[in-house]
Amino acid sequence: MEYIAILFCSGKSGDYYIRSEHLVGGVDKRLPGMFEEEVENKTLKVVLYARVSTRKQKEYLESQIERLKKYADEKEWNYEVISEIASGVNEKRRGLKKLLNRVKKGTVEKVVIEYPDRLARFGFEYLKTFFESHGVELITINGKEHEEDRMKELAEDLIAIVNSFAARVYGSRGEKKK
Amino acid sequence: MEYIAILFCSGKSGDYYIRSEHLVGGVDKRLPGMFEEEVENKTLKVVLYARVSTRKQKEYLESQIERLKKYADEKEWNYEVISEIASGVNEKRRGLKKLLNRVKKGTVEKVVIEYPDRLARFGFEYLKTFFESHGVELITINGKEHEEDRMKELAEDLIAIVNSFAARVYGSRGEKKK
Repeated sequence: MEYIAILFCSGKSGDYYIRSEHLVGGVDKRLPGMFEEEVENKTLKVVLYARVSTRKQKEYLESQIERLKKYADEKEWNYEVISEIASGVNEKRRGLKKLLNRVKKGTVEKVVIEYPDRLARFGFEYLKTFFESHGVELITINGKEHEEDRMKELAEDLIAIVNSFAARVYGSRGEKKK
Repeated sequence: MEYIAILFCSGKSGDYYIRSEHLVGGVDKRLPGMFEEEVENKTLKVVLYARVSTRKQKEYLESQIERLKKYADEKEWNYEVISEIASGVNEKRRGLKKLLNRVKKGTVEKVVIEYPDRLARFGFEYLKTFFESHGVELITINGKEHEEDRMKELAEDLIAIVNSFAARVYGSRGEKKK
């Protein structure tokens, strides 16, 4: 199968075109607003994403960022850091949302994390699929273990999970009574 | 901002072009294989996705599919059913993988489910973001409750979760001993 594609765009910053290998085709209603806003940053980025669950772990967050930066510096990549203090069970974390929005917009090339659970306690596979489908490479560097912190987070996340199950059970019962 | 885009393709089924509104731009290495295979089915589909956790719930699965079909029939949609017996905690379920692959390929327009937990116990928000980013509408019909089944599944999923946490804890300890 042969194809050629040229996308002509004219925006505030002048005229330009996007080559065929930058295009994905075949679907109606895909990101209809995509071209409505000016593509501000045309260069693709490496995003380093770091996370801890609580403020008490600030040191762990900082050392996590350092290790990610060191990794990216060794590769001579230009990067942006997105970090946050939020539970890995929280699916609506501000920093993660920001990252996912960038991926949707198509301005991210690689995402670097230290461990899968930094990105998400559950649903990691779905995020991987999401990144892949937008051509984003996800790199897990598996850095230095922070045993104590990880154990504390596991315990906290388990409590969050059990609470969410309890809410579902009581929610269902509540509906039953109606 | 103005733009026009035409993607010329010539494949086994002849020449055709994809209009600008079918294109998403800006990223290198996005689905590089996209145009290598012939786009076999150019018509977009509605997928009805149904799931139960165990074989014992086969009746619930069947009635779930019936309700989804009824909904789609009322809208006069052409649909395809993907159903499976697997835990909502399992992120590598075969049926879900099939669904996600279709979405990636761009052959899905709408996905209809009965409840969010049919799609996933955790990570539902990530899947929603994934669908949105590919222009797929996710419809939750919130059908008839199957109280007993849902409670059993909640209990089973909680056990699966607790086991996965145990594995992480013992996994970490194992590493520590080395």
